[in-house]
Parts: sequence; structure tokens; C-alpha cells
Amino acid sequence: MQPACRAPFELYSKESGKSYGNQPLSICDESFTPLEVRYDLDAVKGQVTRASIEAGPANMWRYTSLLPIPEGFEPDLPVGFTPLVKAKNLGKRVGSNNLYVKNDAVCFPTLSFKDRVVAVALANARHFGFEVVGCSSTGNLANSVAAQAARLGLKACILVPADLEPAKILNTQVYGARLVRIDGNYDHVNRLCSLIADQYNWGFVNVNLRPYYAEGSKSVGFEIAEQLGWRLPDNVVVPMAGGSLIRKIKKAFDELLYLGLVEAKPVRFFGAQATGCSPISTAVKQDTETITPQRPNTIARSLAIGNPADGPYASRMIREVGGYAEDVSDVEVVAGIQELAETEGIFTETAGGVTTAVTARLLAQGRIGTDELTVSVITGNGLKTTDALAGRYELGRAVRPRLGDFEEYLAELDGPTAVAPELEPELIPAD
Amino acid sequence: MQPACRAPFELYSKESGKSYGNQPLSICDESFTPLEVRYDLDAVKGQVTRASIEAGPANMWRYTSLLPIPEGFEPDLPVGFTPLVKAKNLGKRVGSNNLYVKNDAVCFPTLSFKDRVVAVALANARHFGFEVVGCSSTGNLANSVAAQAARLGLKACILVPADLEPAKILNTQVYGARLVRIDGNYDHVNRLCSLIADQYNWGFVNVNLRPYYAEGSKSVGFEIAEQLGWRLPDNVVVPMAGGSLIRKIKKAFDELLYLGLVEAKPVRFFGAQATGCSPISTAVKQDTETITPQRPNTIARSLAIGNPADGPYASRMIREVGGYAEDVSDVEVVAGIQELAETEGIFTETAGGVTTAVTARLLAQGRIGTDELTVSVITGNGLKTTDALAGRYELGRAVRPRLGDFEEYLAELDGPTAVAPELEPELIPAD
Ligand SMILES: Cc1ncc(COP(=O)(O)O)c(C=O)c1O
Ligand SMILES: Cc1ncc(COP(=O)(O)O)c(C=O)c1O
Repeated sequence: MQPACRAPFELYSKESGKSYGNQPLSICDESFTPLEVRYDLDAVKGQVTRASIEAGPANMWRYTSLLPIPEGFEPDLPVGFTPLVKAKNLGKRVGSNNLYVKNDAVCFPTLSFKDRVVAVALANARHFGFEVVGCSSTGNLANSVAAQAARLGLKACILVPADLEPAKILNTQVYGARLVRIDGNYDHVNRLCSLIADQYNWGFVNVNLRPYYAEGSKSVGFEIAEQLGWRLPDNVVVPMAGGSLIRKIKKAFDELLYLGLVEAKPVRFFGAQATGCSPISTAVKQDTETITPQRPNTIARSLAIGNPADGPYASRMIREVGGYAEDVSDVEVVAGIQELAETEGIFTETAGGVTTAVTARLLAQGRIGTDELTVSVITGNGLKTTDALAGRYELGRAVRPRLGDFEEYLAELDGPTAVAPELEPELIPAD
Repeated sequence: MQPACRAPFELYSKESGKSYGNQPLSICDESFTPLEVRYDLDAVKGQVTRASIEAGPANMWRYTSLLPIPEGFEPDLPVGFTPLVKAKNLGKRVGSNNLYVKNDAVCFPTLSFKDRVVAVALANARHFGFEVVGCSSTGNLANSVAAQAARLGLKACILVPADLEPAKILNTQVYGARLVRIDGNYDHVNRLCSLIADQYNWGFVNVNLRPYYAEGSKSVGFEIAEQLGWRLPDNVVVPMAGGSLIRKIKKAFDELLYLGLVEAKPVRFFGAQATGCSPISTAVKQDTETITPQRPNTIARSLAIGNPADGPYASRMIREVGGYAEDVSDVEVVAGIQELAETEGIFTETAGGVTTAVTARLLAQGRIGTDELTVSVITGNGLKTTDALAGRYELGRAVRPRLGDFEEYLAELDGPTAVAPELEPELIPAD
């Protein structure tokens, strides 16, 4: 299925103005700043419409016209188009009448928003002829590269901090990927990957393929706008690690605006980090785009990037639109996970705990208004970070499978009054 | 969003012919056999069309017209409409040219097909006025009832075998549900729940709400047919525990046929079990609908129902359509999980390992033909049963974050020839 038309695209540097066409490259050789993808949106204006998008498949490839996807690419995997749910219960608890949760905890195939960026990166990896792909990862990216590479028949070599959560490690190895555990934090891993990418002809999704990769996150923004009925929200709360996702949601809104698919309105972006790794939120609070690197120490390991590549740009954008950034303690992260689960039945990983707790904090601060339409972006699944909840729940004793024993157990928990009054002792079967 | 029209429905007993209207009841008081939901499909013939369904939302509520959903119900959660993916790589490995995987491992909200049955059951629980809901569960149902009850503001009391996988236990407790661990297997738990349901005014989704609950599984069948372009497959391979899902996929196909939405053709159903709990596959192989209960002993705990409620009906249906059933060892279950992950990038739980291994076996036996369109139904996510893979993967030593150390590590794994020839020793940075 080919989209009706596709916006032409190429790499360029905003700083030097230099164009690079399309190639596996991420840094401008003149300005030494990151390359970005730019599109000729005028070429598709009037052709990419709400209707043309709605006629597409129920996955991120309905937005192919606005993504850097090489000619001839056949969408293979139905990634994305995850639910946007109205979060009435959570809203009540945290003081919002108009709260939505974008739920990438159920993203196909590996339950995080990273499936979107990987889908775009690997489409380009194949186009550029790479046979081996790789990444440096805080976990979710590892899972997604491993899974999608398996499907595409590409070899994968994935580097992660050695102390990653067991579920994220297993969920990389099971796809047959080579996993290399690095004795260091993400920033060490990332630097090593840059060196490897210079030496080997491998496609590192977040190094030499990074400009393409990052564009995949725009699909989160496209979906939010479409799922709100082609409207923009007042506020978006987004977890930040490298600082890319939050910027790309903004870029998506801007592109929809430019194409006339949504009406103009102010949208404020709010960044969410864990206090144990908060270089971007710190910069925002200090009203600067200078990022002071940190040594991460938080259970929110998927967000634990101490020296975020897109940090300066994220900080600038957030402040330009009148947003803000907050960071929360690990205790609040756990509370955020529980709050979202108990109110909306959505089990998120630590990153989602961060987002939920930060959303609550911003509402309490009055930075987000009660009636404003606010979208909280949940980016990963709770089954990947179960260790964060270790010891939080009692297992309870095993009860014998007899009605009397069950009654007794309930009475232990709630006191005898809780036992159903209609229960007659003689009805208890002898087993 | 209300569907254009809705097929009227009621409970009845096939055996006694008695009608029961709509109430929380699962057994006929004359024949003592399970009640089923029957529809007046003639009332909606010509009105429920491919187009009317396609105009619905991208979730299971697009089929509301054909589900037992009470008048006035407002679909709340976007459950279902999971990907159907062509499994070319897996097909190559197991000898099929035309294999598809239906992937409920990413079902919203709790990553198994049980989200579908729970959605329908709880719609009715609310309609009947229950304030407490519950279930007996082998794990996935527990997760789904807990999550959806939280969202709907219902109290949940959930009973499970005490030895359930840790991820399934946590993924029940996190939603704030009361979890009671029973010292016994699923069949003990289930019998106890029947006694509780008789005593308390609780809505047990798979006891007194069972007829409604079970209909939710039809959505898997509707989706398969629609996603194949309104065609029926030649074969469907389905994991069996209680034996309900496989029957309901068949019922879905039959209803689509009756409404003229698909063309008639023979479809064979194949049941999949683990050898350690194979009462239904044993009955099928012995060409009988008499189920001999078993004491389960398998890592596929979600399928570990030794005395399956719908076993006789499943066995009869499978044999009537010329299908078959197979069962596989726990070793094959693990291999099935790995095979699906390595070929298609889909990480399934033990039940999906069963389905994958049985599909491979049936192809090897020639019971399923190489070119026949075969759908393998994957019903749950691998992150819930990570213990099944314990010890299968080496962690590998932690490598220092230097190019030289990385090179050395690769050489350890692959031998020195694998190291990239273009690597010059002087390029290795000193860190
Ligand atoms: C679950 C999750 N959420 C959010 C992020 C942040 O994304 P970004 O690095 O684009 O800021 C990550 C990054 O790894 C992540 O894994
Ligand atoms: C993952 C999974 N697959 C399949 C089944 C089988 O469903 P049924 O009991 O309808 O046969 C179950 C039931 O618990 C399950 O949890």
C-alpha cells in the first residue's frame, strides 16, 4: 500500500544551512550540530488531507507521507496507532477535568514508543544496504531493534548498560539479537557506539541513522491530534531521556498546522524526568539551554541519560512555548505507576510513573489548569520494570479451596463483619 | 458511539430449548448444561455490512452489533483489533507458504485475548448492577479483570492458583484488586468460585456471567476474517484451556457467513495444548467428546485447566469440521516461544509457544498443507511468563566502554577473524 503522495525529504543542518541529501549521517561536518530531516511540505499541500490519512491503515503508516520513508518501502509491521483514552478517574485524583492518556504501553511489537522510531530507522537501514544494525539503549530501544531486526532478517548487535532490568535483557535476547552489556551508564554506552559506528559498516539506529530514527516519534503527535478529532491539546506532558520525543511531537503538530489539518492554537509542552537524572528539567528550571551532564541514579532507567543529545533543543522549545519541566523522586515514580494502574487500569513502566507523577505535580502547582485539555504520554509497559515494585505487595497466604477457608481468610483481612451475612454455616461444603 | 443497529440477543439452552432472557446465569436448570447467547441475526441482515463495520472504531466495538452488549452501553476502552501479520519467516521454518499470526500479545489493556471477554462481561456486570466482580483465573483473566474493574470503578476479588507466575500476580495486584491465592490448581479454584458466586451477589465473569463473557472471544474471529479482506482462512490453530475461544472463533465465522459478509468455504480448526495438560487434545485424538480430567503439570500455566468446561463441545466441533488437536512437551513450548521471537519479532507467553509448536507439528504431519492459508492465534505476551525462559540465555560478562574491549569481547565470542578488518589498532582511543 503506497500513500497517494509523499513529501520529498532530505537531511540538512539548521545551523550551517548545508544540505546532505539522504545518507546515514547524523552530524553536520561544518557546524558539528545534529542533522535534521526537512520536508518539502508544499509539494503535498492539499493532497495530504484528513481524509487521505483516515483512509490509511490503522497504524503509523497512515502518516507515511510525512515521514522519511524511502521510495518503494512496503510497510511491513503494523506499529503504532495506540489508544488515546480519556482518563476521568486519574483526572479526578490529580485535579484535571480534561485529562487524556496516550498509551504506548501496548505498542506493537515490543510495548514502547521506541517501536515507532525503530520502524523508520530500519526502513532506512535496509535502503542504505546495512546488514547489521545496532543501537545503544536504556532498554526499550534494545527490545525494539532486536524484535524488528529479527522480522526483517537483519543481524542486530545491541549495547546496553550492564545493570539493565532483567525483563529488558531477556526481551532483547529472545529475538536472537547479540546483546553486549557495557560496564557503565548509558552515556558510556552511547559514546562507545559512536566509535563502533565509525569503524564498522553497521547501521546504528540512534547514531548514524539518528535523524531518520527520531522522526518516527512524530507519529505520536500525529495520532494525538487525529484521535482528538483533528484538534491540538492545550498541554502535553512527555517523559524525556535524550529529549527527542518531546520535540518531535511538537514538530508533528507544526506540520499538521502547516498543512491546514488542524487549527492554530497555543500548545504548551511539559517535560518529565526523574530527579535522579534530570539534566533537562534542571536546565528548563534555570531558564537556560545549557545542559549540565549528570551521573544518573534513579529507578527510571529508561530515562537515565545524563548527557542528553537533544537536551539543549528540548529546553529551548519548552521555554519558547511557555511550558515547563519537572522532576520527581523515585518514591513518586512508584506512586505514579500505582496511581495510573488503580485509576485507569494501565500498567506502565517507570518512565510512565515519571510522567504521571509530573502531571500531578504540574496540576498541583497550577501550571496546568483544571479544565485545559492535557495529554499525558505513557511510553512503555509495566511488565518491563516489575523490579521497581518489588516488595510493594504482600503475596498473602495460600487458602485451601473450600468456602469456609475463603470466608475465614476474608475475615482475617477485613474483620468478621465483612463476611456475607447471608452465608449459612451448613451451606459450607465438606469438600 | 452507538452502532447503527444491534442484533437482539438472549440466553438459551441448546439442550432443553429453554430461553432465559438476559440475566447473570450460566447453567440451564432443566438440562444442567451451559447456557449460550443466541441472536436474532435476521433482524440485522443487510444492515450490518462490511461497510458499516469498517466505519466503526479501530477496536472490538466495531462488532458491537454482533455482541451481547446491553442497550445504552457506551464503549469505554479501545480493546482488541490487534495485528494480523503475515509470518513469512516462521512459515519458512515450519513449512508453510501462507501463514499468519494473530497477535493478541499486544491487546489493550493487559496484553492477552482475555481483555476481549472481560470487556463484554463487565459491560453486563454493570448492567446487572454488580458492585463486586471476580473470576477464577490461570493468570491472564486475573490481569484483565483487575485492570478493567479499576477503570470502571468496580471492586474486584480474584482467585488464582497459589503457584501463578510472579508477573501475573503483580499485574493483578497493581490495579488495586484483591487477589486470593488458592492452594490448589485451577479446577479447585474454579469450583470454589462457583460456591462463592452462589453465596455472594458478585459478578464472576467466568461463572455467572460466563455466557456473555465467552462471546467476547468472537471478536478474534471477526477480526481475522476482516483483516484477511473479508475472507475465511483454510485453517486456524488455537490454544485451548477451557475450550471456549476455539468455539467462539468458529461461531464468529458462522455469523459472518449467515450475514453474507464472507463467502462459504470449509475452515478447519486445530486445537493446541501442552501435553502436561491435554484433556481436550486427548479426546480429539481418541475421537470422542468425553473428556477425562487431568491433573495439570506444565509450564503453560495459562492453559492448565484439567477439567475444561467447554471441552466436550470443543472436541465435537473440531472433529465435525475435519480438524485435529495436538499437544506438545514443555521443551517444545520453549522452542516455540523462541522460534516465533527469532523469526517474527513477536514475544509470546507459554500459551503462544504451545500454539507455535503445534502449528509446526501439524505442518510436519501434513495435516495442514503448505499452501493453505493458516492462522496461528497468539493469545498472550511473553513478558508474563519470563520464568519459562529462565537459564536459557547467558548474560555475558560486562565489557568496559572502550572500543578495544568491545573488539576483544567480539573476538572471544566469534574468534579473531570476525573483528572488522578495517580496524586499525592506533584508532582505538585511550578513553
Ligand atoms: C519508555 C521511554 N519513555 C521515554 C523516553 C524518552 O525519549 P527521548 O530519548 O526521545 O527523550 C525513552 C527513551 O529511551 C523511553 O524508553
Ligand atoms: C493466553 C491464553 N490463551 C488461551 C487460553 C484458552 O482459552 P479458553 O479457556 O477459552 O480455551 C487462555 C485461557 O486462560 C489463555 O490465558
